[in-house]
Amino acid sequence: MKLSGAALNARLKKIKLIVTDIDGVLTGGTIYHFVDTAGELVEFKGIHAQDSIALAWLAESGLVTGVISGRVSKGTDARLRILKVKHIYQHRLDKANVFAEILKAEGLEPAQALYVGDDLPDLAVMTRAGLAVAPANARAEVKAAAHWVTKARGGGGAFREMTEALLKSQGLWTPILARYR
Amino acid sequence: MKLSGAALNARLKKIKLIVTDIDGVLTGGTIYHFVDTAGELVEFKGIHAQDSIALAWLAESGLVTGVISGRVSKGTDARLRILKVKHIYQHRLDKANVFAEILKAEGLEPAQALYVGDDLPDLAVMTRAGLAVAPANARAEVKAAAHWVTKARGGGGAFREMTEALLKSQGLWTPILARYR
Amino acid sequence: MKLSGAALNARLKKIKLIVTDIDGVLTGGTIYHFVDTAGELVEFKGIHAQDSIALAWLAESGLVTGVISGRVSKGTDARLRILKVKHIYQHRLDKANVFAEILKAEGLEPAQALYVGDDLPDLAVMTRAGLAVAPANARAEVKAAAHWVTKARGGGGAFREMTEALLKSQGLWTPILARYR
Amino acid sequence: MKLSGAALNARLKKIKLIVTDIDGVLTGGTIYHFVDTAGELVEFKGIHAQDSIALAWLAESGLVTGVISGRVSKGTDARLRILKVKHIYQHRLDKANVFAEILKAEGLEPAQALYVGDDLPDLAVMTRAGLAVAPANARAEVKAAAHWVTKARGGGGAFREMTEALLKSQGLWTPILARYR
Repeated sequence: MKLSGAALNARLKKIKLIVTDIDGVLTGGTIYHFVDTAGELVEFKGIHAQDSIALAWLAESGLVTGVISGRVSKGTDARLRILKVKHIYQHRLDKANVFAEILKAEGLEPAQALYVGDDLPDLAVMTRAGLAVAPANARAEVKAAAHWVTKARGGGGAFREMTEALLKSQGLWTPILARYR
Repeated sequence: MKLSGAALNARLKKIKLIVTDIDGVLTGGTIYHFVDTAGELVEFKGIHAQDSIALAWLAESGLVTGVISGRVSKGTDARLRILKVKHIYQHRLDKANVFAEILKAEGLEPAQALYVGDDLPDLAVMTRAGLAVAPANARAEVKAAAHWVTKARGGGGAFREMTEALLKSQGLWTPILARYR
Repeated sequence: MKLSGAALNARLKKIKLIVTDIDGVLTGGTIYHFVDTAGELVEFKGIHAQDSIALAWLAESGLVTGVISGRVSKGTDARLRILKVKHIYQHRLDKANVFAEILKAEGLEPAQALYVGDDLPDLAVMTRAGLAVAPANARAEVKAAAHWVTKARGGGGAFREMTEALLKSQGLWTPILARYR
Repeated sequence: MKLSGAALNARLKKIKLIVTDIDGVLTGGTIYHFVDTAGELVEFKGIHAQDSIALAWLAESGLVTGVISGRVSKGTDARLRILKVKHIYQHRLDKANVFAEILKAEGLEPAQALYVGDDLPDLAVMTRAGLAVAPANARAEVKAAAHWVTKARGGGGAFREMTEALLKSQGLWTPILARYR
């Protein structure tokens, strides 16, 4: 089931939609909570700058991005909008349904979608997506279901590692580099 | 005193109540404080998503869960309620008394209870619980008193590791996996 | 200059006052800032539960504790008061003066004081204190000036490691353990 | 392109301006967001005490300091002002333009400027600065473009390591040490 080299590259070339879990993928998995002076529960988490810029590059390269999380963080939501994430679904535990909604909205097939997840609630999407990716810190069952396990951990470069491979496979990495030279 | 393999499994099978310390078990041990605009001291800490979902699975599998902490964090309290933790005791240093209260409320024997702790205030409960578990980052005296020391550290999978072993021993892990297939 | 075994123990036995730096000793050194809705700069940092309980044990064992920090964090201040730290000096860069003030207030000699620090501003106190301790993450010049470099890092057990050795040397560790049995 | 020993020292001696990226250099790269009770998105991050004091030392030694970040954090801004950073540019993605502005304002040549960066947006400045430095956690393309890759990681001593080498090369480290003896 694991893909590498040319086989992984061939699969990456078909991808037009990148959907990802948040906790444990865009973050290391740790979630912080406090209650603010208005009595509201505030949930926040940390996303790495090297990963968040990758989200923007995907959108700017003409690819569609989305996140599906079972949790809610207003701060993360606002940040993801700035990073041009088109489909933001928080507080949705029925990830397979959300995945189907996004595919329908975009008129895409599952084979054109890549999904990154680290825990059991991600499995339903991983078994449907054309390319299922797990960060190094994913649970064993998720790694087993993934086509590709990144070397980097969630919150520490996993999303960036996937993004660079994806953009390179589609000839979209050189334009990114050129922008910064 | 250390249990493993079949002996650990036999002990796990009897467990109906899971009680845990918070700091150093559900978190890595680091605690943050700031004073808000209302002048109140806000205490917050980080819990890993892979551990917090384990708390919910235990409750959903028909087991009773509880936490006993010597500290107070409103944010953690709110989060634990969402995770269906039935007994939440914060700001209680007399952990053995709280443990006895929970057992009485549930009509359970100590042998049916598992406790996870990392520091000296946890010892009084660990010596009473049917199964005493320590994360890899526990102090030496606590590891010595534990029946089982997890490979993972607090805040980094220790609670999840315990939960999976417990659910597997009672045939409750397969239903969890089935839910996500 | 480095002490170990019996020589370190002899020095520890004389200590009646424990003064410590905050950043890099009670914390890993990382400091967070945000501006609150009242426009005030809020500084906060993380202290480990296993270290903070050590501060309380020292005070409860009849020893005097104090902190000297060049920075200001209202949250840390409030937390340290709960942990029974008697002398709290924040926003004081002239650490040697503060150290002299504390000694005078307590009627103690420098040989009766232990100081823990990780960076250059701590050197002036470390060269005066009867026992100068550096956590594993201290800068090279500070380690060179210390009588003892702990195995643990600041924010990750260094203060606890020092506390246990100190309490053991004075026969105060057994009463702490007894409290939790 | 990599410099070390005498060649690195010669280059360091010419430096009068130190400009740095924030995320991934002064921090480990992780960024936190929450929405406050006024509905504003608050971005915050962690800077190490051993690195932040280095910023102050540079300014106090007569060197000019500046930061260029594509992001905005009011808390970081306030903290950097306290650390005497003269040029603070946040929310500026055109880093080469900002770098040119700072040079012009100071009447300095690129050869007199050092820049520290970890990701692609830093490349435009790194190829212009007299000395380009990358922390150990920089992306491969940035390390390749750097004259010097520090042993320490961003947020964990990289800026301090650079500062000490710079001050030593200019005979400015001994006065710093003398201040604390």
